[in-house]
Amino acid sequence: MHVGFIGLGAMGQGMAANLLSAGHTVTVWNRSQAPLDALKSQGAHIAETPAQVASGGVVLSMLADDAAVRAVLLDGGVLDALPTGGVHVNHATISVRLARELSDLHTARDVHYVAAPVFGRPDMAAAGKLHVVCAGDRNSLERVQPLFDAVGQRTWPLGDDPVRASVAKIAGNFMLASAIESMAEASALTRAHGIEAADFLEIMTQTLFAAPAYQGYGKLIAESRYEPAGFPVRLGFKDVGLALEAGDDARVPLPFAGVAREALLEALAGGGGERDWASLATVAARRANLDDRDKN
Amino acid sequence: MHVGFIGLGAMGQGMAANLLSAGHTVTVWNRSQAPLDALKSQGAHIAETPAQVASGGVVLSMLADDAAVRAVLLDGGVLDALPTGGVHVNHATISVRLARELSDLHTARDVHYVAAPVFGRPDMAAAGKLHVVCAGDRNSLERVQPLFDAVGQRTWPLGDDPVRASVAKIAGNFMLASAIESMAEASALTRAHGIEAADFLEIMTQTLFAAPAYQGYGKLIAESRYEPAGFPVRLGFKDVGLALEAGDDARVPLPFAGVAREALLEALAGGGGERDWASLATVAARRANLDDRDKN
Amino acid sequence: MHVGFIGLGAMGQGMAANLLSAGHTVTVWNRSQAPLDALKSQGAHIAETPAQVASGGVVLSMLADDAAVRAVLLDGGVLDALPTGGVHVNHATISVRLARELSDLHTARDVHYVAAPVFGRPDMAAAGKLHVVCAGDRNSLERVQPLFDAVGQRTWPLGDDPVRASVAKIAGNFMLASAIESMAEASALTRAHGIEAADFLEIMTQTLFAAPAYQGYGKLIAESRYEPAGFPVRLGFKDVGLALEAGDDARVPLPFAGVAREALLEALAGGGGERDWASLATVAARRANLDDRDKN
Amino acid sequence: MHVGFIGLGAMGQGMAANLLSAGHTVTVWNRSQAPLDALKSQGAHIAETPAQVASGGVVLSMLADDAAVRAVLLDGGVLDALPTGGVHVNHATISVRLARELSDLHTARDVHYVAAPVFGRPDMAAAGKLHVVCAGDRNSLERVQPLFDAVGQRTWPLGDDPVRASVAKIAGNFMLASAIESMAEASALTRAHGIEAADFLEIMTQTLFAAPAYQGYGKLIAESRYEPAGFPVRLGFKDVGLALEAGDDARVPLPFAGVAREALLEALAGGGGERDWASLATVAARRANLDDRDKN
Repeated sequence: MHVGFIGLGAMGQGMAANLLSAGHTVTVWNRSQAPLDALKSQGAHIAETPAQVASGGVVLSMLADDAAVRAVLLDGGVLDALPTGGVHVNHATISVRLARELSDLHTARDVHYVAAPVFGRPDMAAAGKLHVVCAGDRNSLERVQPLFDAVGQRTWPLGDDPVRASVAKIAGNFMLASAIESMAEASALTRAHGIEAADFLEIMTQTLFAAPAYQGYGKLIAESRYEPAGFPVRLGFKDVGLALEAGDDARVPLPFAGVAREALLEALAGGGGERDWASLATVAARRANLDDRDKN
Repeated sequence: MHVGFIGLGAMGQGMAANLLSAGHTVTVWNRSQAPLDALKSQGAHIAETPAQVASGGVVLSMLADDAAVRAVLLDGGVLDALPTGGVHVNHATISVRLARELSDLHTARDVHYVAAPVFGRPDMAAAGKLHVVCAGDRNSLERVQPLFDAVGQRTWPLGDDPVRASVAKIAGNFMLASAIESMAEASALTRAHGIEAADFLEIMTQTLFAAPAYQGYGKLIAESRYEPAGFPVRLGFKDVGLALEAGDDARVPLPFAGVAREALLEALAGGGGERDWASLATVAARRANLDDRDKN
Repeated sequence: MHVGFIGLGAMGQGMAANLLSAGHTVTVWNRSQAPLDALKSQGAHIAETPAQVASGGVVLSMLADDAAVRAVLLDGGVLDALPTGGVHVNHATISVRLARELSDLHTARDVHYVAAPVFGRPDMAAAGKLHVVCAGDRNSLERVQPLFDAVGQRTWPLGDDPVRASVAKIAGNFMLASAIESMAEASALTRAHGIEAADFLEIMTQTLFAAPAYQGYGKLIAESRYEPAGFPVRLGFKDVGLALEAGDDARVPLPFAGVAREALLEALAGGGGERDWASLATVAARRANLDDRDKN
Repeated sequence: MHVGFIGLGAMGQGMAANLLSAGHTVTVWNRSQAPLDALKSQGAHIAETPAQVASGGVVLSMLADDAAVRAVLLDGGVLDALPTGGVHVNHATISVRLARELSDLHTARDVHYVAAPVFGRPDMAAAGKLHVVCAGDRNSLERVQPLFDAVGQRTWPLGDDPVRASVAKIAGNFMLASAIESMAEASALTRAHGIEAADFLEIMTQTLFAAPAYQGYGKLIAESRYEPAGFPVRLGFKDVGLALEAGDDARVPLPFAGVAREALLEALAGGGGERDWASLATVAARRANLDDRDKN
């Protein structure tokens, strides 16, 4: 298939590379140059402007946040350049409000909108092992399924309203934040009672919580290894904010999200915005003054 | 080995049966009669009083809470009946304060105290597949290891201070409460946006959260099946309270525990004390008034 | 002084009337007609467009929220119509972000911006008894002081940065939300123990909490009188959101605001958006299931 | 009236002195000697044992907490020494559970129990200006009214069940904790936006929150003056715990209490247990990292 791809961050690079490996013809655009060179050597065509990638009728985008989506897709002219009947697959994690707005804008232009946020970190993107949560009209979903097969290990369709896929992704990230905060507090508690975080978390993540989310973040906490960040506090704070905003829109109180938000904000206030959000463990430890105890 | 076993609730029955199957000689005591009959048919000896089970020098207990432990072990004379050099293995989830008190009381009587709380529900107890978290002096741990092998799939030692095993169990149960509350809120959010809880939770529990805790409780939430309870709200409220108390003792703030406690208390106030604690999902749904929306 | 006045809601009507009473010449504009007729009979001039009120060089506005401020002041051309050296006094409670933006926009147009949010309910506005919190350049503050004297009992200056007055107002409204939630929970607790809310709150609001905020809202709670709303849940939710947003901008965690927000959202979800925000008491009572208890 | 008085702490000393000034004959007992000497010089009789003060048939006690009440009144024999028909007035802030237990113990001994916790700090006790919240049988309340008149400016009766007075006191202290936490967060927010805490709190405590609670604690926060403590974090943490326990007993969720508890625990973890509980302001400031910002 001929496709355009916009946004070659840590996730987008791996996805675009896997589309190429699967035999698709891929035209890419990115704000910065370096990733373009790498993709070019793997066979990608390079577009001069974001709008160019849309001309083929199928465009995928993997942008950082609402602002980037607005800047590139709307202001950058991608949506306007998409021919009637074209399809835009949006892999980004965006707010419910923007998801709804995008859905309406696509419909007004007679183009198809598929929301397809993914679960997985950069190494899973590189390995083509992402989980693709998607929603959109049935024909479009069928049309782009081969693209999902190239980047993911499994596709999870959620019906025809694209907003749903965005909500599911937001809710999933909120569950991740909760899992981290839960480990952060529990390991502060056990540490204060003389148990090494590594010992406690090993038990948990080998038994009841033997799942990728807990094992991955549990390991970071056990090793106090928060840099470089797989997913920084700054983005985690944004995403928990998206959950709260989605709760506002649908009038759903989310007390855990409120608490996780506060902890992430405390991490930000302490200057830790670029550390991995597993560093919520340091917030819990500081509230309990654990490091000062160890000194004495 | 000749052992005594006290407390034949849903968990204790399976554990005692597995001790018998493994070839140990087991003398049992229980407050009510029914479980005794079942164990007798499997080869157990029946004691007339709790104190009798202790005479052999090794006694295991699996009692419901602090009050039951005090009533049976202390007031019931089990501890006094244990001969010098004997060992008591306490499988119950008890408070940090009682754990410390028991540890001191055993030492004062020249008997050994092993704390060995278990993770796993009754079906895992019946299958001998529990996870045994244990702490106590090294010789005692070695001595009772064959008993742990009979009831569990794996033993997780945490050193010589028995209090640590109790803290780890309490912290683990707090993580369970957090996982449930997290799913409760996330599924209320997605449901309000038109996604069935079952659909959302299937994605989560097959991917990032593919772990027994999430799959087990996620299934209950997806099916709104809270009776009969595997673990009732009433006990969940008690256990989150134990976490907060353990936090008080060691001065560790636990904001998630505070929120989970409030949600469980709301479930109790609504008359749902005997429903499974997965019914936290109904509290989240009620706060968002979801059932009334569905009616309209 | 010749002044323009925009926004004749429950607060603005009283303020404009008091400006007239103090001998000022007042030209008013309002979206709806009814309040204009009333003010006209009191001697006000009526403008056809918002921009007209600005031509005299001094304009006061009392609009509902950020959206109304943007619609009328920016899109409606008021700011553009203000002559060089003119002064705009903004009495509305607006977000920190909009406050900063307005401050910059005024500076860019060589006009003066005074932020002057007020504390007080409509009856205090009618009586000229408001508390005016203000910030702006010193000359402008002196220039408009006679206007503040006409509408308020006291002026509280906070320096030259207009954003500060907005922050103080937002922080004050957050303290009000906290006071209400505190009474809501405390009266649910005492009620569950057999004490009438009225009896408990009378003690509190005649002693330690003998202040207007507690006495006013305490009375509403004691009498379960939430309609018509002096200040509705809907606006309270917005204002607590402004506090959280101000906290985000300056990286200040506000856990009480998070909890109050959740309670207000629960009130909204239950359909109570237009009731007075003192109805947080019904949320606390419902969580405790108090009404059902009374039935039994 | 001939009365016995037990517990000459900062509050009890002032109360006993006012009883003497009002012409009552007072026999006092206290654990430590110093306050006894002072009272003796004012005309008090000194008892050798706690039980001696009860022989006259009317005994008042002002002890620190549940443990002190148990130690002195129960184990110390005061209750047993009270003659049939005697009355015990308990001014202490105690748990709902102990209140209920005491009520039952008095009834079983045919003596009367009046719960009469007070609102007011030591200076108000010395001035005879306390607020006395009381509950007990009508005859007893009438009998001891002259004593309340000697120590307080006003009496607030709450019916015949003594537990109610204890609940009201606990709920009132929870409202104090909430007021402090609210000022702590609001002043951290305004400070981060460039407003001195003193300036912001002056506005609030002179207007909407012009009440003793806010003015007293607001002043401490504005001046960062937390030592010597009028009421230390340690006791505040205990009292918020009493509110949560009272909520457990009656199944009333108290989310604000949960958050205040966590903040007080964080203050304790930082070593600030003996500072005034107005130092919650330092917890809010630290979460926002405000002191480090000021350094840079």
